Amino acid sequence: MSDMRLIVAGAGGRMGRALIRTIHDTPGAVLAGALEAPTSELLGQDAGVLAGLPENGIKLSADLWTLSKEADGILDFTVPAATIANVAIAAQRGIVHVIGTTGLSASDDAVIKSVTKQAIVVQSGNMSLGVNLLAALVKRVAQSLDDGFDIEVLEMHHKAKIDAPSGTAFMLGQAAADGRGVSLDTHSARGRDGITGARKTGDIGFASLRGGTVAGEHTVIFAGPHERIELIHKAEDRMIFAHGALKAAMWAHGKPPGHYSMADVLGLGEK
Amino acid sequence: MSDMRLIVAGAGGRMGRALIRTIHDTPGAVLAGALEAPTSELLGQDAGVLAGLPENGIKLSADLWTLSKEADGILDFTVPAATIANVAIAAQRGIVHVIGTTGLSASDDAVIKSVTKQAIVVQSGNMSLGVNLLAALVKRVAQSLDDGFDIEVLEMHHKAKIDAPSGTAFMLGQAAADGRGVSLDTHSARGRDGITGARKTGDIGFASLRGGTVAGEHTVIFAGPHERIELIHKAEDRMIFAHGALKAAMWAHGKPPGHYSMADVLGLGEK
Amino acid sequence: MSDMRLIVAGAGGRMGRALIRTIHDTPGAVLAGALEAPTSELLGQDAGVLAGLPENGIKLSADLWTLSKEADGILDFTVPAATIANVAIAAQRGIVHVIGTTGLSASDDAVIKSVTKQAIVVQSGNMSLGVNLLAALVKRVAQSLDDGFDIEVLEMHHKAKIDAPSGTAFMLGQAAADGRGVSLDTHSARGRDGITGARKTGDIGFASLRGGTVAGEHTVIFAGPHERIELIHKAEDRMIFAHGALKAAMWAHGKPPGHYSMADVLGLGEK
Amino acid sequence: MSDMRLIVAGAGGRMGRALIRTIHDTPGAVLAGALEAPTSELLGQDAGVLAGLPENGIKLSADLWTLSKEADGILDFTVPAATIANVAIAAQRGIVHVIGTTGLSASDDAVIKSVTKQAIVVQSGNMSLGVNLLAALVKRVAQSLDDGFDIEVLEMHHKAKIDAPSGTAFMLGQAAADGRGVSLDTHSARGRDGITGARKTGDIGFASLRGGTVAGEHTVIFAGPHERIELIHKAEDRMIFAHGALKAAMWAHGKPPGHYSMADVLGLGEK
Repeated sequence: MSDMRLIVAGAGGRMGRALIRTIHDTPGAVLAGALEAPTSELLGQDAGVLAGLPENGIKLSADLWTLSKEADGILDFTVPAATIANVAIAAQRGIVHVIGTTGLSASDDAVIKSVTKQAIVVQSGNMSLGVNLLAALVKRVAQSLDDGFDIEVLEMHHKAKIDAPSGTAFMLGQAAADGRGVSLDTHSARGRDGITGARKTGDIGFASLRGGTVAGEHTVIFAGPHERIELIHKAEDRMIFAHGALKAAMWAHGKPPGHYSMADVLGLGEK
Repeated sequence: MSDMRLIVAGAGGRMGRALIRTIHDTPGAVLAGALEAPTSELLGQDAGVLAGLPENGIKLSADLWTLSKEADGILDFTVPAATIANVAIAAQRGIVHVIGTTGLSASDDAVIKSVTKQAIVVQSGNMSLGVNLLAALVKRVAQSLDDGFDIEVLEMHHKAKIDAPSGTAFMLGQAAADGRGVSLDTHSARGRDGITGARKTGDIGFASLRGGTVAGEHTVIFAGPHERIELIHKAEDRMIFAHGALKAAMWAHGKPPGHYSMADVLGLGEK
Repeated sequence: MSDMRLIVAGAGGRMGRALIRTIHDTPGAVLAGALEAPTSELLGQDAGVLAGLPENGIKLSADLWTLSKEADGILDFTVPAATIANVAIAAQRGIVHVIGTTGLSASDDAVIKSVTKQAIVVQSGNMSLGVNLLAALVKRVAQSLDDGFDIEVLEMHHKAKIDAPSGTAFMLGQAAADGRGVSLDTHSARGRDGITGARKTGDIGFASLRGGTVAGEHTVIFAGPHERIELIHKAEDRMIFAHGALKAAMWAHGKPPGHYSMADVLGLGEK
Repeated sequence: MSDMRLIVAGAGGRMGRALIRTIHDTPGAVLAGALEAPTSELLGQDAGVLAGLPENGIKLSADLWTLSKEADGILDFTVPAATIANVAIAAQRGIVHVIGTTGLSASDDAVIKSVTKQAIVVQSGNMSLGVNLLAALVKRVAQSLDDGFDIEVLEMHHKAKIDAPSGTAFMLGQAAADGRGVSLDTHSARGRDGITGARKTGDIGFASLRGGTVAGEHTVIFAGPHERIELIHKAEDRMIFAHGALKAAMWAHGKPPGHYSMADVLGLGEK
């Protein structure tokens, strides 16, 4: 197979620049386009220079329809509105759409799923190998232990993060709920503060820490009578997400249309 | 000095029984009375037997006025209403009142302070040596680091705990606020959930985990640019609080009236 | 099935007393004998009283042959020499032998395996539910990740522990080696100190902390490029090992002779 | 004061390149020379280009005597033999010598101290703000707690590190020993493996983990009866050491000759 030609959405942001550098460093992948919002002041600038690389002649553009004509895939860590716009175009072009955007609503997800009869979508709240492996472990432990073990999900991120809990924390909570065979919606405890009463048996608790430059740490605790199991993932650097996204794109290249997860990419079974 | 004669309040509860066993094991201390609520079904039962010790002839009673006639101090880990009732009697008797009760309101605290012209009160949100030492460290670090370092307080307790954050977490947050010279009231971030926006510079964050039988773990994180300091206390067993309370009572025996802290008891300076 | 009649070996030690209390509290189990070393000063004392229970008429004895005549099983957390002596008698009697003894040599293990054509042995370096679940997870992660992820096993125990690393640390290291399909003997790094050179790819590292009253904490770290997975077990109290041992004995009661693991008892599959 | 002119020793290594980038980004500092070993294949190459910056015309050289003629200081994270050679020249030139080299022997240290009548040396096993603050805390806690609390120092670093424990672990152990008023030489336990016997009261234990790309994590544990205090520093990125070294150099610029520590630079008192 020839080189995979990739568009980076949000090319002017921190994650976009990391993706551009990762494509630059990866044999078998080439940068085919750099997408930015129509309102961005960076439109027209050189994507290589923005990413700290030599000039590469690819200018930031807001026109995905044109860019995607000569591309095989798009890497998209942006915001829900942009991703929903992109998903329609990617589907029409029949190219791979790797979605790492978080904060999507249930109706956003419905839109994404509606296009996967013709589109090849890989979507995950977290593209790292380690986190997806962790989710598989969480599901297994939740299957093995009854609700005499209380499940808590803790995460810490840098001070600029604007939502809590993180998308990855929800993904881990969902894995726990799946393992237990319960609905996360009806079995969550979030934002504990004040007189909460005793912990409700079966709830999955969430807590969020913010500070400094922490790239992302997630802990799932199973606390039982006089013993605890803790499963932890620590990201030292956001490059692991860029690497995972690129791995996902290259894995999906040539696959039939469908809605894939990182667990599919990594061969982690049905989770 | 002869043996210190001590009353245990809440003698039928888990903490009360731990206190009775600790007094039993400590040279220089003797159990002088066992107090319980007027509505308790345990009134009249033997305090020794309840605590898993040989019968000692001391029956649970609801009458502190009578009990305190022949006592030198009272150890009180109960509820705010009971503690406020006890503090008046202890003051009138001029005996030591060790208060480990949490969840006290500002007006409760005002009542307690109002009696310390005649009473000898030792009060702390946490009676352990380690936690009070931790609070002194937190204050010092908060003095040394500017608000480029974000402060977060994390705590985990057993599933039966009904309030969040813990009294000890507030005590640690207060130490951080004191070190920074700010008011905790106006610089707290609690119960993060949903779209929170970026972290506000200078805030002190709180998060609470609940599960299993965890006796109590507290972590204070100072997260700066590319480095973190974390200060942690782990209690393996509630007996450390009972030991601390007894140590406080014996330290206060014979001291002039006043409102003392565990930092005073432990000689940790002005914190 | 009628009550299972159990002998506790090392009945005068801390673990032995915990086992006696656990049997006392468990429906379906009764104490049938209390074994101690021939040199013990406790021989002849009442096992119930030693364990902080009411007198039960069972005196500590050094004669397992006689004790085992009227027993269905023996719980054995002692020392290698004692366990090897006990295993021969248990085999001849055809009773269940639960072995939690650590520090056994390869030749000790060979002796134990030699009797399992007639004996029912359940053996584990750690009898807790959580640790055995952790071992299963470690094996799975070691299968999923290549040796670009370095594996480290860290443990902490109380200051009285005399060997390092713990038996459980070895058990977790073995699970990692099994997952990778390598021999632990030729892929271990222990006791790092001084000029060690760079870490050898594929090694499984071990480190041991000692201090205070820590009941037992084990961490397995998978450290890869810019991310880490950590799997942790924390025991708050040695009672979890006593509960596990009793669960193992009752599970094995009536099983055919063989050499069983806690993974068998807990239904954790082939690990 | 005009810009401080700085030489970077080991300019071709990872730390050297980080130092060159940091000088580039810091107002008030300029790169005056780039030193490498006489055997280095990088001699003659451009220091800017090597560090991922624009060409700056400063070629890697092995001749410190000439380089230092027009310099105010040297930043030195190299190996003991190189540092000892550099210290003599820096002293003769009377320029600031910031030493972050680890693995120095007692006789190396004696040589360094011998020149500080004329030289301005700032030396530390770890140049980060956080670690030096941690060392001050460790000393204070060690003063407050008696040897009923066992002290353990744990560190984790990337897989390429060749010595254990880290220089920073020793620095923290020394702070603990100073706080206790004992000699670290006679109160260390390192490389625990095999039958160690029970922990010796008063010992300071060390353990080392290696793996992945961990920039550096240090934990000091005070483990007492049923409670623990843990003091932790986590470096996310080696840039914090480069920033600290530069801060040290600029602090020392113009100071009288002497042997200074990062505690002096950071104003952390006598520790």
